[in-house]
Amino acid sequence: MNKRTVINNIGKIILVEAILMLIPTIISLCYGEFDDVFNFLVTIIPSLLVALLCTRAKGSPLTPRDGYVIVGLAWIVISLIGAVPMFLTGAFDTYISALFEMVSGFTTTGASVMSEPGVLGHGTQFFRCFSHWIGGMGVLVFVLMLLPMENDSSMHLIKAEVPGPTSGKLVPRMRQTSRILYGIYGALTLILVIVLIILGMPVYDSFCYAFGTAGTGGFGICSQGLGLYNSPAIEIAISIGMLAFGINFNLYYFLLLGKVKDVFKNEELRVYFGIVVVAIVSISINIFSVIGNFADTFRLSLFQVSSIMTTTGFATADFNMWPNFSQHVLVILMIIGACAGSTAGGFKISRVIILWKSFIAEIKRIINPKRMMPVRVNGSVIDYKALQAAKVYCAAYLIIMCLSVLLLSLNGLDFTTNVTATIACFNNIGPGLGLVGPMANYSVYSMPAQFLLTILMLAGRLEIFPMFLLFAKSAHDR
Amino acid sequence: MNKRTVINNIGKIILVEAILMLIPTIISLCYGEFDDVFNFLVTIIPSLLVALLCTRAKGSPLTPRDGYVIVGLAWIVISLIGAVPMFLTGAFDTYISALFEMVSGFTTTGASVMSEPGVLGHGTQFFRCFSHWIGGMGVLVFVLMLLPMENDSSMHLIKAEVPGPTSGKLVPRMRQTSRILYGIYGALTLILVIVLIILGMPVYDSFCYAFGTAGTGGFGICSQGLGLYNSPAIEIAISIGMLAFGINFNLYYFLLLGKVKDVFKNEELRVYFGIVVVAIVSISINIFSVIGNFADTFRLSLFQVSSIMTTTGFATADFNMWPNFSQHVLVILMIIGACAGSTAGGFKISRVIILWKSFIAEIKRIINPKRMMPVRVNGSVIDYKALQAAKVYCAAYLIIMCLSVLLLSLNGLDFTTNVTATIACFNNIGPGLGLVGPMANYSVYSMPAQFLLTILMLAGRLEIFPMFLLFAKSAHDR
Repeated sequence: MNKRTVINNIGKIILVEAILMLIPTIISLCYGEFDDVFNFLVTIIPSLLVALLCTRAKGSPLTPRDGYVIVGLAWIVISLIGAVPMFLTGAFDTYISALFEMVSGFTTTGASVMSEPGVLGHGTQFFRCFSHWIGGMGVLVFVLMLLPMENDSSMHLIKAEVPGPTSGKLVPRMRQTSRILYGIYGALTLILVIVLIILGMPVYDSFCYAFGTAGTGGFGICSQGLGLYNSPAIEIAISIGMLAFGINFNLYYFLLLGKVKDVFKNEELRVYFGIVVVAIVSISINIFSVIGNFADTFRLSLFQVSSIMTTTGFATADFNMWPNFSQHVLVILMIIGACAGSTAGGFKISRVIILWKSFIAEIKRIINPKRMMPVRVNGSVIDYKALQAAKVYCAAYLIIMCLSVLLLSLNGLDFTTNVTATIACFNNIGPGLGLVGPMANYSVYSMPAQFLLTILMLAGRLEIFPMFLLFAKSAHDR
Repeated sequence: MNKRTVINNIGKIILVEAILMLIPTIISLCYGEFDDVFNFLVTIIPSLLVALLCTRAKGSPLTPRDGYVIVGLAWIVISLIGAVPMFLTGAFDTYISALFEMVSGFTTTGASVMSEPGVLGHGTQFFRCFSHWIGGMGVLVFVLMLLPMENDSSMHLIKAEVPGPTSGKLVPRMRQTSRILYGIYGALTLILVIVLIILGMPVYDSFCYAFGTAGTGGFGICSQGLGLYNSPAIEIAISIGMLAFGINFNLYYFLLLGKVKDVFKNEELRVYFGIVVVAIVSISINIFSVIGNFADTFRLSLFQVSSIMTTTGFATADFNMWPNFSQHVLVILMIIGACAGSTAGGFKISRVIILWKSFIAEIKRIINPKRMMPVRVNGSVIDYKALQAAKVYCAAYLIIMCLSVLLLSLNGLDFTTNVTATIACFNNIGPGLGLVGPMANYSVYSMPAQFLLTILMLAGRLEIFPMFLLFAKSAHDR
């Protein structure tokens, strides 16, 4: 491992985070919340010093392994630093709870330990929601956009950070790619902000909710959440927004290039909308008798399907109270997640497609052992390594889920709560069922359980491997 | 597909089943239960006629594909026939419930829709328990032992039927292999029968419970189950019996050959006992405060861990009432199951080992992309196809579980019940948590749900692929 290169990169990340923290500091200053200004400054100043020290280390170019190590470390470091001003507000009992909240923010999980997020000042609240936006597309991708780096090195970083079974460059230069991605991301977010303002949401709130929607995070800024505005139009706008941010961003780039046909022929996109439609229809039929009128039924099921499938986790209804079938549909959506290369978490639709096709190929292999059975997605053959990785990911997913449920059960809560809390954190969704339902929060779990869930959120966001590589012995040795 | 060969083989299986049914018929006759004698005879006579017709078809040698098709069809046919005398007793509301019970028997699941199995006559009850014994080692393996077949063909059948990621011949001739396996199986069962009789269990009951233990099935013969005998010695004997039948039978053959060292070095066996010990200790610690004294705590946790891990499903305590942590441990054991090549169901320990090692290999591959990373179990490299199959199995497992939970939820029951019912049926265990707990039964589910669970039991016993191949178009076409 090139220790110096790793330190250098971590330094850059701390630097960017410190600079970004100036935005909420200014907001706190504007609202006259001087305690919060102080909290931010005591975090920013030492961070800047450490960052400047770190960036003085210069090393050799990155290897793929270094890419994973940097990504894993980066996410831990930004969360540790980001949790400091949160903890200093006094709204959290312990630093671990503040860390849980911050990791939940950066990983765009949106699970909270706060029963009333409204107690936070405007600057701190903004920072909490802004973390969704930064984490959504990837902290490293953001850093890449701002700071120069060799092309090869940055490819390794992107590979390790962007979710999904495969990731490619849009244009030959990685820095250009990350600028395009963040350009699209920023533009879409801005459109949403404007729509929300037009629909009557206060400007400050519009930004906060747009960040949560764009990053598919799900933090609300008060305990009533979106219910505060009592506006069906806002709910529908956010539903459509969530669905839009669950699409692979490469497709938006293709749209910009005028390759409309490619977009519509995209297999993952078709399956994505197919699942959305089936889920909305089946939930609508199931909850119609509870809700009573067609318009509300459709609106609620559209919102909840979009929110859960894109792993955002906003809630406008307590789906804990819905009929059992609808709850089960939502749990399945939690596991699947949305498209690869979007800001959403979960297992990713393209992985489900790959696994399904591998299964069919295996059946064909039994029928006809001598024929080669390549797995194709979007017409092109998925290479052996990506197939391999998707399957190993599935196995690791199952193993980690089982272990986590088992460890959480030490806390004494029930099976449904533990299983859905694991799914909701690992897939970066937010709310689960039972005691961690949409109208509840994660403070029901003890400190060690919160810490375990924090690790799960990170492992889920980084798709397992970077977190495990940090602890793999040979990663440090060689 | 060689239709004639398939028909011929199915005919053989029907023949063997019809002859086997004569045993419970004689028992019914001895106990003077003439209604049951009639029920058996109206099933046996037409079966014999059909069997004789089928076996007249002669075709070309089997392909691997035919092996899977025969195994899939065979299990369906024997269950359909076996359910007839059960249904005719009048103890079941519908034929589907009787089919559920019979599939549960042959697949050694042990899930029941009967709240009081004691209502059945002695012959029918014997047949119900005997189905565990026949299904445990494999119906086809049993047929192979009795009837001549070419060596190549029988290999394909064994491959499709014997559980686990890889299966080998013990001796060059398959017929010899199946005789050795059934010889060991029969001898161990007989030892258990004798031990149970010595410990004071009535002779008839000893046979019934020994069949359930040997096949890792789990049917009780009355609603009190083993609680009726109120004997800690019997419970411990059955605990040890269950653990013994969860071991790969090849290892017993090695023991007979004096290869003791090979047995003790077996990786799967070590992991198996490792998990058993850890589970017993952690459950003991967890339930000690509820039970109160050390001896009972140990006995109960030994029994329940053996019963669930080997997917037998006998219950001496309502673990639904145990602390949450112990329940979660049991659910994890349900998923893992016992050793490949035993009569137990579940995911199989050797598959867990293979998946875990694949995960480690994947991490090493990221660190060092150029090096080959073979996966070794018991010192020998697992070949590419077996690795492939284990991973695809894992993916199929996850997909089927999700779909099943979703469909079951249409029945309106809660999440814990649906998830554990799916796990308990798919892994051929029997009891789950919630409304299908150890002291409850599956009559809470409606007819369509029972039918779905019936298919799940078959798919789980045959490890997914044979069932799906039956519906794969090309299996019929070519």
